[in-house]
Amino acid sequence: MSTAPAERRPPGELFLSEVREQPEALLRLLEQRAAFESVADLARQRAPVPVRLVGHGSSDAAACYGVYAFGLLPGWTALRDSISLSVYYGANIDLSHSVVVALSQSGQTRDVVAYVERARARGALTIAVTNGEDSELAGAADVTLPLVAGPERSVAASKTFLNQLAALALLAGTVAGRGDEVEEALRRVAGALAVLLGPLEEAAVPIARSFAYVGRMYVTGRGIEFATAREIALKLTETCRVAAEPMTATALAHGPIAALDPLFPVWTIASADETLPAVVEAAARAREAGAAIVASGSAAAEIEGAAYVLPVPEAPMPVLSPLLSVVTGQLFAAALAHAKGLDADRPERLSKVTRAL
Amino acid sequence: MSTAPAERRPPGELFLSEVREQPEALLRLLEQRAAFESVADLARQRAPVPVRLVGHGSSDAAACYGVYAFGLLPGWTALRDSISLSVYYGANIDLSHSVVVALSQSGQTRDVVAYVERARARGALTIAVTNGEDSELAGAADVTLPLVAGPERSVAASKTFLNQLAALALLAGTVAGRGDEVEEALRRVAGALAVLLGPLEEAAVPIARSFAYVGRMYVTGRGIEFATAREIALKLTETCRVAAEPMTATALAHGPIAALDPLFPVWTIASADETLPAVVEAAARAREAGAAIVASGSAAAEIEGAAYVLPVPEAPMPVLSPLLSVVTGQLFAAALAHAKGLDADRPERLSKVTRAL
Repeated sequence: MSTAPAERRPPGELFLSEVREQPEALLRLLEQRAAFESVADLARQRAPVPVRLVGHGSSDAAACYGVYAFGLLPGWTALRDSISLSVYYGANIDLSHSVVVALSQSGQTRDVVAYVERARARGALTIAVTNGEDSELAGAADVTLPLVAGPERSVAASKTFLNQLAALALLAGTVAGRGDEVEEALRRVAGALAVLLGPLEEAAVPIARSFAYVGRMYVTGRGIEFATAREIALKLTETCRVAAEPMTATALAHGPIAALDPLFPVWTIASADETLPAVVEAAARAREAGAAIVASGSAAAEIEGAAYVLPVPEAPMPVLSPLLSVVTGQLFAAALAHAKGLDADRPERLSKVTRAL
Repeated sequence: MSTAPAERRPPGELFLSEVREQPEALLRLLEQRAAFESVADLARQRAPVPVRLVGHGSSDAAACYGVYAFGLLPGWTALRDSISLSVYYGANIDLSHSVVVALSQSGQTRDVVAYVERARARGALTIAVTNGEDSELAGAADVTLPLVAGPERSVAASKTFLNQLAALALLAGTVAGRGDEVEEALRRVAGALAVLLGPLEEAAVPIARSFAYVGRMYVTGRGIEFATAREIALKLTETCRVAAEPMTATALAHGPIAALDPLFPVWTIASADETLPAVVEAAARAREAGAAIVASGSAAAEIEGAAYVLPVPEAPMPVLSPLLSVVTGQLFAAALAHAKGLDADRPERLSKVTRAL
């Protein structure tokens, strides 16, 4: 990616400016409705299908969201497929009835491209969802849904991730014949974000300051917010050098709760949906173990005894809730990187296009 | 589970004795061949199917292995299904052509039972794989494959996990018409384990001693060994209070590598298979970042510059490699818990049957 020399800017300025730009980036995506309609038509011709989602890093967190978007809107089985199973091991799995959704912000992730080439050769419908419209991935897939997020110059992704979620929701909604409803709801999300970003950015600063010496965290959510947990944990890890591990509220109780102590905070994403009781219970157990709780999400107020509360409004459709809740984590990561004297734009040892292994 | 009062035993003695008992437990499982044949017949009648694997904690790590066992042996699409999507959100997904494999060591994990009840009502073939032959899960499923691992009294699971892997390999192999081959290979694994356990237990002790003050680790593997990475990370977290996060070798390069430093060791599982170059490259990058590397697995010697090397023999079939490589992590966890003065048998705040959330 071409970048202006980052040296001239304050550290973390690119990341923060791209976080702030998300409402506009989201509205740009919605101008692509026609492309979503035609891709959804192609996908419906394959039904009933498994949808195979592939990606690494943030794109894998988005894939995790896609499982819920397709499961809840058209009621399709979607899975985060194993890239190694087909690319490395050459497993002989029938893909002729599959729809592949390949997620890569740059469109240059080597083994995602290899997966798509192989799946297409084996008869799958392959859809690239990428910000790199002229990328290798776009060239390899049958069709491309461009993210149109605009150039992302911070190494840590933000607006491309948000637009990946929106693209998956819009595609799943269009497949289900609910494209108009999802589009309208996404417009309202963009509006809500525009109002939310400033106050949330301010609220994150003092909380981040008190976390300046934290070295490890758990980030928990359940159901559709597990994707959010994964993305927030990744942001904290790459921009703030915190060992932040995402886990479902339930997984926390299956072992990791044993490791908690007062220096091991737990970030909780609580949304007003059917998983809330499980999230509330997991947070209570973490608090019993002495962990400091950060409560976020639209139902943050339901988490008793939280040390910090960073609520967001309820999404206009429950399936869109992660688009609001992830922003809290992005802004907190920006503030924490700043408090630690790190440059969120250029984390050590990372480059924008990941050397795929 | 009924337990003798643990107070009379040295801390960690139950866990270690169950780790040592694994070769016998594995051989007991193989006496159930007839049950595997009849369940495999039922599963084949549903083909082509997606296999939906569900479980939490160690059982979810086993599910992760199942994706590869079914992908590599019969070439079936298997997925770790979202429990929340169906149990909490009530998603309207067609399950009538599915085979469900529900993994729970106790057979009492509440939401796994709820998932099975729902899937069975919706027409799926439901298979319980459990050590609790008279459990609620066994009662809820169409058929049960008992793990016959014998009572597991340590809270941290070992032999039930190994038998879950073996049961998944044997079921997938039987479906593929290769049951005899897998059975024979599992017998050889049991033999190799019996020889390996003693020397490996001794080798782990001095290494664990040098890790006594480590608070966080990454555990990496790729492909089929990612399941192993998950299980080893969970053992380290629950028995040693180390924040050990599992990640694929490739995911490490997508962000987390930025967080590494010399006090942040990386446990690498390197097996002699097609993913080895990716694992070798990820380990090299982690070492460049200053992390101390523990190299394990059958290709441990291929990891350059590792601070510690804990190799295991090659498995008689590549798909069985995790059954050998996981044992290194179990023994290291036992040794590290001991070095830290913790009781691996009874981690704080955990009980054998997880309060499912």
